[in-house]
Amino acid sequence: MDYNRAFAQAIDRLHAEGRYRVFIDILRNKGMFPNARCFAGHNGPKPITVWCSNDYLAMGQHPKVIAAMEEALHDVGAGSGGTRNIGGTTHYHIDLETELADLHEKQGALLFTSGYVSNEATLSTLAKILPGCIIFSDELNHASMIAGIRNSGCEKRVFRHNDVEHLEALLAAEDPAVPKLIAFESVYSMDGDIAPIHAICDLADKYNALTYLDEVHAVGMYGPRGGGISERDDAARRLTIIEGTLGKAFGVMGGYIAADKQIIDVIRSYAPGFIFTTSLSPVLVSGALASVRHLKSSSAERDGQQAAAAKLKAMMRDAGLPVMDSTTHIVPLMVGDPVKAKRISDILLAEYGVYVQPINFPTVPRGTERLRFTPGPAHDEAMMTELVEALVEIWDRMELKLAA
Amino acid sequence: MDYNRAFAQAIDRLHAEGRYRVFIDILRNKGMFPNARCFAGHNGPKPITVWCSNDYLAMGQHPKVIAAMEEALHDVGAGSGGTRNIGGTTHYHIDLETELADLHEKQGALLFTSGYVSNEATLSTLAKILPGCIIFSDELNHASMIAGIRNSGCEKRVFRHNDVEHLEALLAAEDPAVPKLIAFESVYSMDGDIAPIHAICDLADKYNALTYLDEVHAVGMYGPRGGGISERDDAARRLTIIEGTLGKAFGVMGGYIAADKQIIDVIRSYAPGFIFTTSLSPVLVSGALASVRHLKSSSAERDGQQAAAAKLKAMMRDAGLPVMDSTTHIVPLMVGDPVKAKRISDILLAEYGVYVQPINFPTVPRGTERLRFTPGPAHDEAMMTELVEALVEIWDRMELKLAA
Ligand SMILES: Cc1ncc(COP(=O)(O)O)c(C=O)c1O
Ligand SMILES: Cc1ncc(COP(=O)(O)O)c(C=O)c1O
Repeated sequence: MDYNRAFAQAIDRLHAEGRYRVFIDILRNKGMFPNARCFAGHNGPKPITVWCSNDYLAMGQHPKVIAAMEEALHDVGAGSGGTRNIGGTTHYHIDLETELADLHEKQGALLFTSGYVSNEATLSTLAKILPGCIIFSDELNHASMIAGIRNSGCEKRVFRHNDVEHLEALLAAEDPAVPKLIAFESVYSMDGDIAPIHAICDLADKYNALTYLDEVHAVGMYGPRGGGISERDDAARRLTIIEGTLGKAFGVMGGYIAADKQIIDVIRSYAPGFIFTTSLSPVLVSGALASVRHLKSSSAERDGQQAAAAKLKAMMRDAGLPVMDSTTHIVPLMVGDPVKAKRISDILLAEYGVYVQPINFPTVPRGTERLRFTPGPAHDEAMMTELVEALVEIWDRMELKLAA
Repeated sequence: MDYNRAFAQAIDRLHAEGRYRVFIDILRNKGMFPNARCFAGHNGPKPITVWCSNDYLAMGQHPKVIAAMEEALHDVGAGSGGTRNIGGTTHYHIDLETELADLHEKQGALLFTSGYVSNEATLSTLAKILPGCIIFSDELNHASMIAGIRNSGCEKRVFRHNDVEHLEALLAAEDPAVPKLIAFESVYSMDGDIAPIHAICDLADKYNALTYLDEVHAVGMYGPRGGGISERDDAARRLTIIEGTLGKAFGVMGGYIAADKQIIDVIRSYAPGFIFTTSLSPVLVSGALASVRHLKSSSAERDGQQAAAAKLKAMMRDAGLPVMDSTTHIVPLMVGDPVKAKRISDILLAEYGVYVQPINFPTVPRGTERLRFTPGPAHDEAMMTELVEALVEIWDRMELKLAA
């Protein structure tokens, strides 16, 4: 057995497909987002504008968030020093769980070290508590949900993206007595479309299924209090479990679920990914708490982001760029080839100081490689004009297809 | 299908076995560790002494760590805003990976959101890159390694704890051409014993197996620079992969692996648990960097901790308490019953202001439930005297077995 050879071949495969990833080394400039510094090796060091951050509302630089983190840092220190059960439950954790439960109109909430872990741990554990459970999963579900479903070891049925008829056909085909769980997302972050939550809940009612909704790309950003699409559509109470992240619109790091008390107790008690790990640093929890509370009462950031996204989409469309049909804050530009997507991104960084990461397989299906822009309240019109002009020039230079 | 009933039964099972967990809600007082405040509902609010923190060296309150986190918070903000590939690689991440590679005498290192995720993601991915791989796993390996091995879907052979002969028998029984990986820990954190690293590496050489060592409870604490038991025993270069956490002796949060460049590149490129998640907050990374650097050049904390552990073990032994045979900084006191272990812990908290969590199944095997003390450089002799006197009184009151 030649281990080196096996590893080298694994890397070679990525190069051959043009999807070997090079990480861009940056530091964002707090107080001046989307401004950042790019480091040597990446045409740096030089100032850049970040166009692909998932800190959608720039809460990572919000004075309330910074102040809350600083306070916790000085009051209780850097880390929690333990798992949730062994010294790692701080009063910040309890407060944030209470706040998140309220945000999603649920009895309880549970923090995890990330959104990834919340999906993996919850889905894999739920199915073990419900022997024989079948999980119905949207075909575009995120890798962390797929991991959880896979690791649960239970049966899985994949329904076509947002296709309620297909989902119903799959549900109807199974034994009514068998436990069922429908797992889906509200905002699909690479396309920017939205799930029909009520229609899916109707099916769950009809076929006695539980529902699990990933609101990672919607919490903080939709609904009058930032409760996500489920709040906007007045569907939160219909869902069994709502999952979210503290690392995107809330600007910090961490993940969570919200559900009724009993389910929270079960996951808390049985999920290895929750139990056997150092809890979130109280510094992060304190920052997230400030962020969630702020966005519950302020809609300025949400409005600013929606306006920026609408503006950028219109400008790209007017320029003939192939912007995809997104109904949300996500602005995806189709390229359809991994090498070209990377080349455009490289030129933008080297020549224009614009940072946008190419999105390749396995994040999106092969042949649908794209650039994905996330304009926020801090991206102004001058930046957008610069960006669109740069894109038009590159599209022309590389002889890429314009929109029909 | 009655979901509520299934969930209620799952919770009832825990109550019936006396291992339903109640989280203690605390805030540690930075600058005064092991001092903390305990909140209402747990005989609080009142001041307590924490005896079960895994912030072993109290680095979570070290001025250099706090200053580094504060600096990052003000320079770059709260979170990274992206996955490692999409805007979430900051210069802090690069610096810390370089520092950790050096600490473990490896070419490279890779950060994860936690030690749990580093184990799960690395082990599950490695086995997929090496089709047909068999993993040889110590029977006391941590839940996160077990999850990784399970999720890899590969064959597993479990060897008796630290039993090199048994491991050899299992290795010898397999086809020499098949890829093999031996996964083990250096310090087993619930018993406090240490793996025979060189002997296991000898077997790896003989049978052409890779080695994976979890040093979560040793990094920062053993070896002249805090490189763990592998550094202390001069074995780091013999190991294929060394895994560690930033959440215990380093006092912050996060996890990592160190290995040669090619393996790092493979895990970086293929592990879903690394790829599809918001990267560690730069605030945490900056704090961890300061902590790792400090402990590379300062042995005062290590020496203080070893002295405190030796002292507490001696005092417990002298008092006739059944302290287990630990060769490390861990001080486990055997109780052997989940209900009694919880009762002792409850009395300590309610009557003595001492916080030590009972350790029950599944963290330890049934029938070996225990209290696990982690004295550190900040626990002084007066605290130890108080603790031992309290334990003797409770042992007497509950008519528990003393040591032979
Ligand atoms: C849909 C979806 N769910 C979950 C996650 C994971 O959340 P986190 O970044 O907090 O781990 C992500 C992205 O990272 C995501 O896009
Ligand atoms: C042996 C071992 N490995 C890994 C972990 C996980 O590390 P982390 O707490 O950073 O997730 C732990 C404990 O939490 C552990 O005890």
